[in-house]
Amino acid sequence: MDERVRDHAEVIVDHSTGIEADDNVLLEIPPAAQDLAEAIAELVGARGATLYTAYGNNPHRNDPITRNYLQGAETDEVETPEHQRELYKTTDVVIFVRGERNVTEWQSVSPSVHAAYQQAFEPLMGELLDGRSCATQYPTASFAQLAEMSTDAYEDFVWDAINKDWDAQREHQAQLVELLDGASEIRIQSGDTTDIRASIDGMPAANDYGERNLPGGEVYTAPVVDSIEGQVLFDIPIYHEGREIENAHLTFEDGEVIAHDADRGTDVLAEILETDPGARRVGELGFGMNRDIDRFTHNILFDEKMGDTIHLALGHAYEWTVGENRKQNESAVHVDLIVDMSENARIEIDGELVQQNGYYVFEDGFEL
Amino acid sequence: MDERVRDHAEVIVDHSTGIEADDNVLLEIPPAAQDLAEAIAELVGARGATLYTAYGNNPHRNDPITRNYLQGAETDEVETPEHQRELYKTTDVVIFVRGERNVTEWQSVSPSVHAAYQQAFEPLMGELLDGRSCATQYPTASFAQLAEMSTDAYEDFVWDAINKDWDAQREHQAQLVELLDGASEIRIQSGDTTDIRASIDGMPAANDYGERNLPGGEVYTAPVVDSIEGQVLFDIPIYHEGREIENAHLTFEDGEVIAHDADRGTDVLAEILETDPGARRVGELGFGMNRDIDRFTHNILFDEKMGDTIHLALGHAYEWTVGENRKQNESAVHVDLIVDMSENARIEIDGELVQQNGYYVFEDGFEL
Repeated sequence: MDERVRDHAEVIVDHSTGIEADDNVLLEIPPAAQDLAEAIAELVGARGATLYTAYGNNPHRNDPITRNYLQGAETDEVETPEHQRELYKTTDVVIFVRGERNVTEWQSVSPSVHAAYQQAFEPLMGELLDGRSCATQYPTASFAQLAEMSTDAYEDFVWDAINKDWDAQREHQAQLVELLDGASEIRIQSGDTTDIRASIDGMPAANDYGERNLPGGEVYTAPVVDSIEGQVLFDIPIYHEGREIENAHLTFEDGEVIAHDADRGTDVLAEILETDPGARRVGELGFGMNRDIDRFTHNILFDEKMGDTIHLALGHAYEWTVGENRKQNESAVHVDLIVDMSENARIEIDGELVQQNGYYVFEDGFEL
Repeated sequence: MDERVRDHAEVIVDHSTGIEADDNVLLEIPPAAQDLAEAIAELVGARGATLYTAYGNNPHRNDPITRNYLQGAETDEVETPEHQRELYKTTDVVIFVRGERNVTEWQSVSPSVHAAYQQAFEPLMGELLDGRSCATQYPTASFAQLAEMSTDAYEDFVWDAINKDWDAQREHQAQLVELLDGASEIRIQSGDTTDIRASIDGMPAANDYGERNLPGGEVYTAPVVDSIEGQVLFDIPIYHEGREIENAHLTFEDGEVIAHDADRGTDVLAEILETDPGARRVGELGFGMNRDIDRFTHNILFDEKMGDTIHLALGHAYEWTVGENRKQNESAVHVDLIVDMSENARIEIDGELVQQNGYYVFEDGFEL
């Protein structure tokens, strides 16, 4: 077995989820990741925990078994899987591994059945968010193709981003958390196309060092909900449910999107914005800090942590990034959009320059 | 997809388990059976049931993921998987598909850890026996190899035995059930080596037509526990937990094994007999009636239903084959041993000839 697979398993079991004796562990993993499944299983056994292993059926799985299930079902027939809900309820740690063999596997699923499945699955999301979990990636040929990379180069990319010293990463990122916590205003500029100001007054910053998401590597908070002003060009393309959005351009007033455009996928962007009132506001402001992620790969699990980037998410804000007397933006969506900060870019916090051309004030590459 | 795979899925979903709207269905299936998983999923969706799909972790799975789990664990660390237990408890229908890629995958697992896992798993067996379930086989290269057959010939063999008219089979077998129900004594002879008499007075006969076992195809009852007299040569070899027993020879007195021998695996046979007092007595007397199973394949799911055979199981008797005022033989084991009845063989019920050289009195091939 590839040593990097063993390392990946160790990061998941010991760092991300901290599996201990008597934990009930659920591993949801696709067949393509067989060696990672075996490596995880061995460690779970060694920690004295229990293990149940599943393919994973959920509205984002993109696997061929659930595809056929949905192809067989009628919209009004999709019920909440109560047995799966009970399984999640009594599970201490869930490990989700992505790595299906075809990332467009669900193109043949009817959108109305998919939507019905999402709705039926909704009660299970709460069970999952309550417990310990880790969502991670196995480097399949299909995801390499999505990234426009060879499979071996993609393996290096994925495992370099995942198998690293997460304690050092946590400490490194803590320096940005310190700059954000207690600050009032932030201004982000990139080229001629992005210049926004937002209040982060009273909003806690969170440090993501590879626990619920693996790879981790970002610091994030929520802007005060009605505070964003200005315009942003999201120059890193993203895939939203299999459809690309390229160069989305948003204009904000009083925290709300008042104008939108894109070079590609304007309709997708419009659909997102029309989901509900919260979808027109920003629920997350994130700073990518994983420098082993040095290129975008059409995979938000990686792209949003890329060094030299920031991202805004339209929609739902995480509870832990919203201050006690602040309003939490609520929405059915949470869509991350990314800005390249590597050139002609700067971030100011309370008037002080903290990032220039991708480098933070506490990093070696930072130059005035 | 192979039409036989679709047919197999239909038999499982509609005949064996009768899946209906709102049933919570759990499918435990190995990756080698991907196409069958997809075919089942489509039908489960079409019936309006829910679906969760797992690799299946249990003490008999023989899969590489549980193998590694057990290799990682220490004997005293194997706990009951409570989340899996809750899953089974809230599941209406469980479908178990066998078809691992290597039938000797667990040779590297320590017997003490395996035994600890069996013990930890024991509470889950009750949950499984309570509900609707179907155990079936996918024809992999590994099982073809075990059967000493080419993979394509083995596929024909498996699907011929499974994809058949089970209503007709049920009616055919009902004729033997009728002969057994209400009868007092049975005598079974084969060559010079097998001649036993047993009382079946007050013991109900069961008709297996492919519900909990697929393929089905047997009629079975339990002998009155202290009634078997005589000797039997089990001339069809069997595999018991990966070890072969060939030509087991047992002598019964007052229903108990008083002498045993075998050409191969005498130690395995002795271990079985020494498990507990119930292991020295017979819990099942079965009649193989699936004529599409025309050869033994080292797989008890098939072998025991082979036409022209009968089998006795040492150990546990099924509750539904034991009359109200009769003693149910109890044991931790239930080991089926098979006798070829195709030549120079006969079965008498209450002195009347009902089978000769494999053919029952109600079958075309029966000749006096």
